[in-house]
Amino acid sequence: MHKHFASEEIVDRQIADGLVPPDLKEKIIFVLLRKHRHQTKKPIHRSLADIGKSSNTPSNRSPQVNLTRSTSSASGIHRSTEDLRSRQSSSLGHLHPAQSRSMNDISDTPSTDQLKNKFMKKIPRDAEASNVLIGEVDFLDKPFVSFVRLAQATTLGGLTEVPVPTRFLFILLGPQGKTKSYNEIGRAIATLMVDDLFSDVAYKARDRDDLIAGVDEFLDEVIVLPPGEWDPKIRIEPPKKVPSAEMRKSVLNLNELGQMNGSAGGAAGGEDDELPVQHELGEELKFTGRFCGGLWLDIKRKIPFYCSDIYDGFHIQSISAVLFIYLGCITNAITFGGLLGDATDNYQGVMESFLGTALAGTVFCLFGGQPLIILSSTGPILIFEKLLYEFSKNNSIDYMELRLWIGLHSCLQCFLLVVSDASYIIKYMTRFTEEGFSSLISFIFISDAIKKMVAAFKYYPINRGFKPDYVTSYKCECVAPDQASAVGLNVSAPMSDDNMTLLFNLTDLDWSQLSKKECVKYGGALVGSSCKYVPDLALMSFILFIGTYSMTVSLKKFKFSRYFPTKMRKLISDFAIFMSIMSFVGLDMLMGLDTPKLIVPTEFKPTRSDRGWFVLPFGKNPWWWYLASFVPALLVTILIFMDQQISAVIVNRKENKLKKGCGYHLDLFWVGVLMAVCSFMGLPWYVAATVISIAHIDSLKMESECSAPGEQPQFLGVREQRLTGILVFVLTGLSVFLAPILQYIPMPVLYGVFLYMGVASLSGIQFWERIKLYLMPPKHQPDFSFLRHVPLRRVHLFTLVQILCLAVLWILKSTFLAIIFPVMILGLMVVRKLLDLMFSQHDLAWLDDILPDKDKKKKEDDKKKKKEKKSVEPESDEEVRKRSRYGSVFSDKPTLTLMSKTVSVFFLKLKSCASLHLLRVCCFWLCFFLTNTVCFSSLSHSVAEKALYNTYYSLLVCPS
Amino acid sequence: MHKHFASEEIVDRQIADGLVPPDLKEKIIFVLLRKHRHQTKKPIHRSLADIGKSSNTPSNRSPQVNLTRSTSSASGIHRSTEDLRSRQSSSLGHLHPAQSRSMNDISDTPSTDQLKNKFMKKIPRDAEASNVLIGEVDFLDKPFVSFVRLAQATTLGGLTEVPVPTRFLFILLGPQGKTKSYNEIGRAIATLMVDDLFSDVAYKARDRDDLIAGVDEFLDEVIVLPPGEWDPKIRIEPPKKVPSAEMRKSVLNLNELGQMNGSAGGAAGGEDDELPVQHELGEELKFTGRFCGGLWLDIKRKIPFYCSDIYDGFHIQSISAVLFIYLGCITNAITFGGLLGDATDNYQGVMESFLGTALAGTVFCLFGGQPLIILSSTGPILIFEKLLYEFSKNNSIDYMELRLWIGLHSCLQCFLLVVSDASYIIKYMTRFTEEGFSSLISFIFISDAIKKMVAAFKYYPINRGFKPDYVTSYKCECVAPDQASAVGLNVSAPMSDDNMTLLFNLTDLDWSQLSKKECVKYGGALVGSSCKYVPDLALMSFILFIGTYSMTVSLKKFKFSRYFPTKMRKLISDFAIFMSIMSFVGLDMLMGLDTPKLIVPTEFKPTRSDRGWFVLPFGKNPWWWYLASFVPALLVTILIFMDQQISAVIVNRKENKLKKGCGYHLDLFWVGVLMAVCSFMGLPWYVAATVISIAHIDSLKMESECSAPGEQPQFLGVREQRLTGILVFVLTGLSVFLAPILQYIPMPVLYGVFLYMGVASLSGIQFWERIKLYLMPPKHQPDFSFLRHVPLRRVHLFTLVQILCLAVLWILKSTFLAIIFPVMILGLMVVRKLLDLMFSQHDLAWLDDILPDKDKKKKEDDKKKKKEKKSVEPESDEEVRKRSRYGSVFSDKPTLTLMSKTVSVFFLKLKSCASLHLLRVCCFWLCFFLTNTVCFSSLSHSVAEKALYNTYYSLLVCPS
Repeated sequence: MHKHFASEEIVDRQIADGLVPPDLKEKIIFVLLRKHRHQTKKPIHRSLADIGKSSNTPSNRSPQVNLTRSTSSASGIHRSTEDLRSRQSSSLGHLHPAQSRSMNDISDTPSTDQLKNKFMKKIPRDAEASNVLIGEVDFLDKPFVSFVRLAQATTLGGLTEVPVPTRFLFILLGPQGKTKSYNEIGRAIATLMVDDLFSDVAYKARDRDDLIAGVDEFLDEVIVLPPGEWDPKIRIEPPKKVPSAEMRKSVLNLNELGQMNGSAGGAAGGEDDELPVQHELGEELKFTGRFCGGLWLDIKRKIPFYCSDIYDGFHIQSISAVLFIYLGCITNAITFGGLLGDATDNYQGVMESFLGTALAGTVFCLFGGQPLIILSSTGPILIFEKLLYEFSKNNSIDYMELRLWIGLHSCLQCFLLVVSDASYIIKYMTRFTEEGFSSLISFIFISDAIKKMVAAFKYYPINRGFKPDYVTSYKCECVAPDQASAVGLNVSAPMSDDNMTLLFNLTDLDWSQLSKKECVKYGGALVGSSCKYVPDLALMSFILFIGTYSMTVSLKKFKFSRYFPTKMRKLISDFAIFMSIMSFVGLDMLMGLDTPKLIVPTEFKPTRSDRGWFVLPFGKNPWWWYLASFVPALLVTILIFMDQQISAVIVNRKENKLKKGCGYHLDLFWVGVLMAVCSFMGLPWYVAATVISIAHIDSLKMESECSAPGEQPQFLGVREQRLTGILVFVLTGLSVFLAPILQYIPMPVLYGVFLYMGVASLSGIQFWERIKLYLMPPKHQPDFSFLRHVPLRRVHLFTLVQILCLAVLWILKSTFLAIIFPVMILGLMVVRKLLDLMFSQHDLAWLDDILPDKDKKKKEDDKKKKKEKKSVEPESDEEVRKRSRYGSVFSDKPTLTLMSKTVSVFFLKLKSCASLHLLRVCCFWLCFFLTNTVCFSSLSHSVAEKALYNTYYSLLVCPS
Repeated sequence: MHKHFASEEIVDRQIADGLVPPDLKEKIIFVLLRKHRHQTKKPIHRSLADIGKSSNTPSNRSPQVNLTRSTSSASGIHRSTEDLRSRQSSSLGHLHPAQSRSMNDISDTPSTDQLKNKFMKKIPRDAEASNVLIGEVDFLDKPFVSFVRLAQATTLGGLTEVPVPTRFLFILLGPQGKTKSYNEIGRAIATLMVDDLFSDVAYKARDRDDLIAGVDEFLDEVIVLPPGEWDPKIRIEPPKKVPSAEMRKSVLNLNELGQMNGSAGGAAGGEDDELPVQHELGEELKFTGRFCGGLWLDIKRKIPFYCSDIYDGFHIQSISAVLFIYLGCITNAITFGGLLGDATDNYQGVMESFLGTALAGTVFCLFGGQPLIILSSTGPILIFEKLLYEFSKNNSIDYMELRLWIGLHSCLQCFLLVVSDASYIIKYMTRFTEEGFSSLISFIFISDAIKKMVAAFKYYPINRGFKPDYVTSYKCECVAPDQASAVGLNVSAPMSDDNMTLLFNLTDLDWSQLSKKECVKYGGALVGSSCKYVPDLALMSFILFIGTYSMTVSLKKFKFSRYFPTKMRKLISDFAIFMSIMSFVGLDMLMGLDTPKLIVPTEFKPTRSDRGWFVLPFGKNPWWWYLASFVPALLVTILIFMDQQISAVIVNRKENKLKKGCGYHLDLFWVGVLMAVCSFMGLPWYVAATVISIAHIDSLKMESECSAPGEQPQFLGVREQRLTGILVFVLTGLSVFLAPILQYIPMPVLYGVFLYMGVASLSGIQFWERIKLYLMPPKHQPDFSFLRHVPLRRVHLFTLVQILCLAVLWILKSTFLAIIFPVMILGLMVVRKLLDLMFSQHDLAWLDDILPDKDKKKKEDDKKKKKEKKSVEPESDEEVRKRSRYGSVFSDKPTLTLMSKTVSVFFLKLKSCASLHLLRVCCFWLCFFLTNTVCFSSLSHSVAEKALYNTYYSLLVCPS
């Protein structure tokens, strides 16, 4: 369609309506056909001084609604005030025209300006433009307004900013002197045309009244800042998220509905239409009722993603994740290996820990259901091994063989849990339980890191009384034993078997040339005021520890700073931990102090020379131990099951936006397999490590790269793949060869990383946010959605209950009861159940999740709303699915009630008994309760009970 | 007026207008007279489940526009959506009614609810209320709307939230089903009534049309957030500052004007009406042209405030300020005293430094023009004293006497500057110069603090090769000289006069029992690998240094955190430095390490025993030195003048909102007096210290205590008083007695405080903000007003020039040229002058200040705008005054141009010559140029020149 023709028709129509005198026709058409100028650009006859002044407006500052005006003979306002900013989002269907250089805009080929425009890539394919033309002329005495919808979109050449066909035209010509108002009208129309709902109206309007109704509808929804309460000069940041047009439409309809239905509907419709986002376990966790049903579903779900699980890993972010998690893993392996070596007389030492971590981790990441989970040894396992080793030593039972059988039993029990779809029990784990658990684990991480630092001060004592001037009086000399007794010292040097053989040449020794260790070894005495002090190392360790932590925190925060382009900030933030470690390793090398370093084993052989890489199942213990080990295995199974699945729940949190689904049954299956394999090879047992897994996820988070100005980056999800995990564990296995590099890393740096991991995993936990609320006056509290819906008193009460629970758990954990630690989580679930009595379901829905059985009732209440919510949000499908899951799966409410009662009895018992006897009683109770639950319904009661009582008595017989 | 009567009249009027059928009269009156319910409260027939849900609405969340609705028989919507929040500011003239418990609201005594209301104290005395009543009834089929203005305000009992008489009533009754719309209408009317401009209209409206015009005007100004681009659930923070009603009124008028005047006026009116806030020196700095005119004005200005200068100091904030500044001052005094003692062979040592600081500071704070300025010794003075001492030692001239005469001459020259009102020259110091100077001083502070820390690592060397195991091989033994030579060591122990006398008993000594110092003293040799190392102290110092700095920064930032009530946060922030110092002093005591401590002199006597407390003016030097010292005195005067006045300019910055005025002339007078006194007593000379003065001001900043919810605290100004200064210096004087307490403070802690001072004084400098812009992509740049008006390229260019200037100054400062450092500031002023050629006046107005001579031209351009701006802002008076000052005072443009030319020649010379010769040439040039300037116009040219040449040659004669 030719523009001239269009212009003529527009003017003719107005003349026909009697709005414009016919004699102005030619003049108006002339104006309309002249070259237009973009509103943000200067007029041609601008002063030279103004050039610098305005040239930054379109490029540097935030975008505004763009307008054009036809170049009329009069000069006008060139820049509008900036009180309103419209974002050109990707859903933009309409565009505003820009300037072209030609005297007449009409050409069929897009101009170079248009093709160069960077916005083009943010515009969907079938977008059509809407042009707003505003002008001031001297021959009109009242405004000439026209809104044109073309029958079909036509390219109007240089009129539009981007080469997109034009569908709408708005023309406003008016008498002189009101340019500002005209500009505002133009901006308003442009804003209106950008609106999703109004553009619908504009496309479908049959007549002028439809259009006006559309404008009215728009105005009804507009948010108004009253002039006296707001300074128009303040620029409002574009919002993180805008409501979708669908949402608004439904609200609109609802309002109409409400108004028709009368007061009741109106009351419900206007408010509270936002529902708390329910905690989501994914529909993957289904009670199939079939043999291996859950496992089969898990496998079926994961298989299609297997290829992408590999190639999704090829990203620079993976490198930082691998380095970070690798360092976390080997530090953990070394610490744990050392402790385990102490506890088991080196039957399992650092070497076993490394090998086990590498083996278990690689296998799990290759075949597990959720490869983002990082396997590691955990505290409860360590305590169990310790107790087991003591028991077997005292009873002259072969530890490795007993352990193998416990592992095999436990593996079998895991398989039973897998085939019976027992993992669905974790659906009773609400946010309350889950956040309690992960906070506790985080606190343990933090306190462990700090404890290790404190230990450095004990290991490297500082000579506090040191006076630089009296340096001459500080020395440490090795004195021969006979001399030592001569000078009146009590020598109590340890004389072990192997250094007795060296005694023959003691008299030949130059005692003063011996090092501290040699001196002690040969029975010499250390005399002097500096013997028990180590200078600088403690303080240097502290500096490295705090430095690494602070630098990591600062660099991680750097993503939110104003400096550098987004990509660079992202890179710095991704590599924050690596950069901090490198910096402080560098500082340590620079100082050259003998700080404790990361020493990994360099030879591939078992720590203890009298054991091999394979444990034989028979021969060393009496036959009945092979059966009796069923009972301790039960405890191990509970440990493993709870630890593994809670970590999996945390990893699979809805907030993480995982897309490839989870695999609770598959995970447990592989943990079971690895139990057996590790037992055979005499390696430690492995289970999901909460904090490291969270760190893994955090280091793989993806955000959208925003290119449109003012667009906020969106959290897209996690880079779900197996590559990082596999690499981490392969590297762990290869650490034996990496020892020369790794020995430069000081341990305090790694403790700093641990501290960071602990603190970082606390952030994003709502519980933690709620604790902070205690310290905030209501005025300064952040705008949490639960604060809008739940009274502050109730929020505080809920938090208090949670704090008390954690305190009790912390105290229990600090005793040797740590062994049943994961079981205590069941206690949390019971407390959560009791909270139903204290809090209304409404409050709990906001602060926590609704328990499945309560949800059913709630579902009925929500039925009406659900209907309204349908097709409102993209996630609504999931929501519907979730509801149906809650409704259908849980028909076994009595079992659960029984279970929780049992557990609460168990906890009461816990408090009343003490020492090892307590443990035995607990074991009994635990086993008893487990035999009562559905998980073991496949075993006959009598058999299980008999076996249990046998074990119980046999355990009682063991020496006190 | 009785409400029943009012209701009846309202309904009657509507019936008369035919809007309401007469048969509904009774029903409507019945509804109107029923008890009302506050919109934020629940209806009586609410469900129990809702109780928890809503009870937090009025108390915890941010305030909304409050509405009432009369309790009609139908239920409705109880909570409106929260897309709009209105702040109840202190300027609030109208209130919204609240709920009362009675069935009928009419009573003449205020209810207890009303009296308890906390908002009452934020309401001005003559406030009148406006009540909005909204209801839904079943007997109406079209809305009943009524806006009532009472002839005079009447107390309507429990109707209003606070006991305030009602002036306006808005009543809306309508058919059922549209409650939401009714509520929105009510909110809109309430918002409207709160608006300052509309309330004017409401009071003055003669008929319905006036009201509607008022509403239209309001709507024209309203800021609109389009629904598709904004989520109504997002809560917008109340703005820091809202435009005043006057401002809006003038903008309105302007628009009308613009529209009437045609395009030109419209173009000017709509944009750019905000002008950069010009840098303000206060109208106090006037060139009176009379003898002592400026000094007299200063005294006249300060006298009325003298009493308040004392009692304004009684505030808890003063305690923190005193502690902070006291510690800064004594650290400075000790550092400076130590350096000065080294430079002058203890003619002026730590004791003199303390006494001088105390004396000069107390006098200045008691009588000075700007008691917020803290006097201190500065670097250039130190360098001058050093050169002077060397000169007098080499020429066998008595240093103290020469110094006395220089001081006396300098004092005289200061008096000349005072009587001739020479201080007005600093008006040529724009933001460019001033920020350059203060940045440089801050950088020096920071680098000094860091240098001192690095020195700690040199002073306490760390034994890097220390292996804990080989502790036996580390020792340090004192060996007798003969033995030392026997073991082949080169002994080169210093043998001074006084330890030669001790040699007699050397042979009797047990050498191994000697301390390091004793060993060296008696000529022994230190043998061993640990002799030159000091363990732990360097690292501990580093921890104390960084710890104090970081803790201070964190605690200072705590004011902006969300935790704790405002008052507590304010207290923590005020005492941040004190708390940090205390914490790290505590840590140091806990560690018990021998870190370097703050040691102040404990006895009141001159550092050197051969000098007394009073220097005699005659007798030791030839008579002509008494005259010749005029020339070095000139250099000192320039040092003092520039240092003092630039610091004063920085202290008197407009941003600090000082109310009691400044006293440049009075300040200089007292500095001169103190010069003479200190010279007579042989104490160092004192001048304003920039960084400590800024720290003093920062620690005394006042903010409004906000009590209305959502109100932002406003910076009110600085606690201007003399008490803190006096206390600081009295305490400094008493430090001799405080030594036992002060010796617990480690020096690294104080260096940390210095580092903080340096960094803190950088913040708030626009130059610094502009440097940061280099690193920020335009998208993330803060919304600085100059960025809205000046292209980014120009901003960067301006910053670059400033950085280059500073770099040159820094390099010059690092050489011995530091002595003429304050003079270099003149160079900055020349560069600024040259910038006029590079940048447009518009850009400079935003980035810097307009130079006085340029300002005149600008003033004419702005004449029109000024007219518009009149009575626009509260500060506009000042602005007008400023303009007139610039216009009237500066008629001496040629002098300035000459001056700047001279200075630029001076700088060119500076670069071409080297070494001491350079200094002499510079001295000559300096003196030459100074004699040419207006400052010395009272001296005859020939005399001054002659004296100068004399000195110049005599200086050239001095030994190379």
